[in-house]
This record gives sequence, structure tokens and C-alpha cells, in this order.
Amino acid sequence: MPDTDDIFGEPTSTREEILEATFHALCEHGYSNLTLDKIGGEFEKSTSLVYHHYDGKDELLVDLLEYLLQTYEDGIPLSADDPADRIDELIDQIFLMDDTTGGFGQALVELRAQATHDEAYRDHFELTDDLIQDQIAEIVRAGVADGSFEPVDPDQTAAFLHLVFMGVHTAQNTSSTVSMEHARTELERFVDETVKR
Amino acid sequence: MPDTDDIFGEPTSTREEILEATFHALCEHGYSNLTLDKIGGEFEKSTSLVYHHYDGKDELLVDLLEYLLQTYEDGIPLSADDPADRIDELIDQIFLMDDTTGGFGQALVELRAQATHDEAYRDHFELTDDLIQDQIAEIVRAGVADGSFEPVDPDQTAAFLHLVFMGVHTAQNTSSTVSMEHARTELERFVDETVKR
Repeated sequence: MPDTDDIFGEPTSTREEILEATFHALCEHGYSNLTLDKIGGEFEKSTSLVYHHYDGKDELLVDLLEYLLQTYEDGIPLSADDPADRIDELIDQIFLMDDTTGGFGQALVELRAQATHDEAYRDHFELTDDLIQDQIAEIVRAGVADGSFEPVDPDQTAAFLHLVFMGVHTAQNTSSTVSMEHARTELERFVDETVKR
Repeated sequence: MPDTDDIFGEPTSTREEILEATFHALCEHGYSNLTLDKIGGEFEKSTSLVYHHYDGKDELLVDLLEYLLQTYEDGIPLSADDPADRIDELIDQIFLMDDTTGGFGQALVELRAQATHDEAYRDHFELTDDLIQDQIAEIVRAGVADGSFEPVDPDQTAAFLHLVFMGVHTAQNTSSTVSMEHARTELERFVDETVKR
């Protein structure tokens, strides 16, 4: 997750200003304790504008998630070209991500939990899941094609790796008793021994 | 997760009666929409008894989680003796679990999300994480000792498998775009090719 300057730049609309205020309030207070008034407190203009644009915090948060997803429409940014290096870089990014989000990672665990009962959140996270799985499958497909990977099923490997990433994200934000170092070493063993050639 | 008769049997105290009512209300309404009044609605005695025993829904839910954890103090029930069969059985249980909980699996995703900001939930889930990781590590250690497993690091394999299980649980309850069949086949490939001998 880049810092907010990279995401919002110089907001060009009231919507962008509200979303930036929402992002900051969400990182500070988390989902459960967030209110439209707290979002208004991060907003330079009148809080009543927030109420004018959105019916409640969930409508606003889903709009924020959609806005953030646009930043990631090409998936997680990777610089390597080689499939083997791209997989390594992806694993790096996933394990690093939650150290650098200043509260956003924790909020994201709470937001995903809303997908258990709220259709709008569920639609959003299903889009995200598709995006990430497609990105992983594409990397694996390229590795199989150029012979640097075993002839694995790209969609199968992608579904599994995405599950691992969801586990990493949940564990990093809700528990300190799961050793990320252990889990990562074992994940790399899986990739080295059964995916890469 | 066994059915509630297995968990609560014939409740022998007001606490157990309240906890059983809470379990049913939680499965029906989920965490976000749960109130002490809705719990009272599942409770045969007066709702005021619930308020008398607990200050709020979180105190009550953490007590329910602790009560349920006692049922699992020996870990997830497995019947096989052989380490290779026990690992297979554990994977079976994890993938089956969420099909059989009637709303409890979804509620559990919401409850774990509370661990991002609530110490009492966090303490509970860290205990649970320790319990499951210890159980997996013990199986792996037995397999390494009797020569049926590769000489892997039991704690490392356990941390990784537990992360996978967390990912399975989150995905099953928040998204239908992650193929559980794919993920499971790939998990079994990991276990067959790099853990079992």
C-alpha cells in the first residue's frame, strides 16, 4: 500500500476529499469505532457535506474501497520481468504490506468481515480476489510457458497462493503467535520445490 | 464444529443457558447485528438475567469463545493414528468445517476481526492459534520421527499450514470466487510432495 499522497495526489473533487478524510479516519479509529462525525473531523470542509454525499459509513467505505481498487487495477505493482523473480517479489510485497499501512491493514480485516453479511462489501472483495488470483495465475502461466516452472495448473496454484496471502493478512493483524518468519520460509520451500523448476 | 447438543449438552447453570442462547443468536444474526436483546430473545428466562451477568455483548461473546475453546482443549478431534492419515484428516476437517456450522463460521470471521483492536478477543484467538499450531506441529514431529515424513521443521510446517487454514476460513465465508477445490488440490500437492515421504 503506497502512502496517501500516492493514492489521492491532490484531491480534485469533494468526493476525493471525503475519501481521503475517510482513509485517515479509518486508519486511526478502525472500522468498528468509525462514525461519519469522526470522518468529518478529518475533513477540511463542513461535516454536513459528508452526510450530504453518503447515507452511512458503509456506503462511504465501499466507495473508498472501490476508489482504492482502481489504483490496483493492474494488480499489485511488480518490477521484475522473469516469472520466478515476479513470484518472489509478490511474496515480498505480501509479507511487507502490513508493516507499512499504519492501521489500514487492520481496518481491512474488519472490512472483509463485513462481507460475511453485506452484499456490497462481498462484491468488492470478490472483485479483489479475482484480480489477485488472475495476476498470480498469469505469472505462473508465463513460468510454465518459458519452462522455468513445473507444468503446474496456474489457476490451482493461484487459488492456493491467494489463500495463503489471505491467511498472512489475517494473522498479521489479529495474532502475534503465528510466526511469519516460519510461515514465509515454508511458503518459499513450497514455491522452490513444487512450482519453480 | 459439532452441533449444539454436543457442545452444551443439558446446560447445568444460568451461564451455560445464556451461552447457548448467545450461540444461537450469533449464528442467526452474525456479530454486527447482534444485541443483548436478541440474545435475550433466544433465552428461556428473563432477558434482564443476561444484563445482570454481562456488561455488554463483547464480554458475553468472549466468554462464549472461552467456553467453546474448552471443548477443543485437545485440539481438533482426529481419529487416525498414523501421522500421514492424521494430516489428511485435519485437512478434511478444515475444508468441511464451514459447510456444517450454520452461520457460526461467518460469525467467527467477524469475531476474529475484533482482535484487530480488542485485547480480550486478541488473547482468545492467540490461544486458539497456539493450540492449533501445536497440534499440527505434534503430528509433523511424529511423522518425522517415524520416518513417514521428510525431515521438515515441524514448527515451520505448522505455522504455514495454520496460515492456510486461516485463509480457507476467511475465503469460505467472505468470497465465492476463490476455488476451494483448486486450493485444496494444491495444498494436498504441497503435503504429498514436500511433507510426506
